[in-house]
Amino acid sequence: MKIAILGTGGGARAHIAKLAELGHEVHVGTRDPEATLARTEPDLMGTGPFKDFLAEHPGIQLHTFADAAAHGELVINGIDGHNAVAALSAAAEQLAGKTLIDYAVPYVYNPDIAHPWPTPWGVMPTLDPCDSDSLAEQIQRALPATRVVKAFVTQEQDTVVAPRAVGGGDHTMFLAGEDADAKQQTVDLLTAYGWRDILDLGPLVAARGMEMYAHLHSAIGFALGFGTHFGIKVIR
Amino acid sequence: MKIAILGTGGGARAHIAKLAELGHEVHVGTRDPEATLARTEPDLMGTGPFKDFLAEHPGIQLHTFADAAAHGELVINGIDGHNAVAALSAAAEQLAGKTLIDYAVPYVYNPDIAHPWPTPWGVMPTLDPCDSDSLAEQIQRALPATRVVKAFVTQEQDTVVAPRAVGGGDHTMFLAGEDADAKQQTVDLLTAYGWRDILDLGPLVAARGMEMYAHLHSAIGFALGFGTHFGIKVIR
Repeated sequence: MKIAILGTGGGARAHIAKLAELGHEVHVGTRDPEATLARTEPDLMGTGPFKDFLAEHPGIQLHTFADAAAHGELVINGIDGHNAVAALSAAAEQLAGKTLIDYAVPYVYNPDIAHPWPTPWGVMPTLDPCDSDSLAEQIQRALPATRVVKAFVTQEQDTVVAPRAVGGGDHTMFLAGEDADAKQQTVDLLTAYGWRDILDLGPLVAARGMEMYAHLHSAIGFALGFGTHFGIKVIR
Repeated sequence: MKIAILGTGGGARAHIAKLAELGHEVHVGTRDPEATLARTEPDLMGTGPFKDFLAEHPGIQLHTFADAAAHGELVINGIDGHNAVAALSAAAEQLAGKTLIDYAVPYVYNPDIAHPWPTPWGVMPTLDPCDSDSLAEQIQRALPATRVVKAFVTQEQDTVVAPRAVGGGDHTMFLAGEDADAKQQTVDLLTAYGWRDILDLGPLVAARGMEMYAHLHSAIGFALGFGTHFGIKVIR
């Protein structure tokens, strides 16, 4: 299948590598492909140059966001939360009629925010939107012809594609969205990744809780210590 | 041990009944004891009159918030989130030097909010504070002489005191707070309730994530269907 991943960060790379391994034709979108390929330094999260990643993963095609979206039959959004609505809106035509799986957290990266959250690694960004809206709903409103599904966001970005790396894989993946077929496509992808416990939370409004879980997820990670993989399971 | 529970709702009653069963001397606080005892109708959540509950649980003593706090060596806050800071501040003297375990969610019960969240049972209230602050931190700032611990809030209020009712009890209870002794008291209480997996998330700032998890908790509950008990477990 032709799958487009929008974004070149650590989360996007996990999907790119796994989807290529699963035999899909992978199209990656970035704002400015030349600039992405020219980068030689790690990004803010310590992720190495994308050019090096591409060299290790032959066959991956790099495009602009719009061109990648045009190639994809299914599209995964890994664009930073605060840039996502603008970048996706610019590719609205190429995304029309397609399923878009969004896993972004709408973090506000503003050092001047009134109440930064101190963490072992500096300050925790706040969320915008939060509580009375979600990024996924904003994207759906901006792209009414696209079928938006929120997924992946409540699990670690590296174990989303390798759930068995955490406690044998017995934890829970959530998803939410308005379109049943788009959610089934997402379930099929998750099943191919190895997920066995997938819980449909219903309409896209449930993305609020999924995005707002980000702070609890971070706190659990801080408590367990850097490098400890974990995931949450709904015991019932 | 003398334990005070502030509040008479469903969550408070679960603690009252369990603590009495465990042999503690239980003191319950309410705004106006006479008014609480005079009520003959169920509350908004369908919880029956407190007078009936007291009749089934002999030995429980009902006081004002301040008098209950004065009697308790350990205090549990079950006052509605939007009233908690004001009500607790009025009992600051009686709470000084004591551990206060807070499990309230700071829901805003305002039908005029701009973006109510539709749910199977009406609209979902928003949270205030949210994201850049938490109710637990507000309470700690209002009561600097009290040792505030956030706990219980991420699990169902009826199974908090009976964790084995959910999947044999193998799920995770979180807590956060600034004082190590207060957290140890909380761990001891949770252990008596039957909790085996208790994860200390560190300083009270982690209460933000615990309170903001409320929306995901609700969404999971809606997805599983009314009456299905559940809890989250950190798989690691």
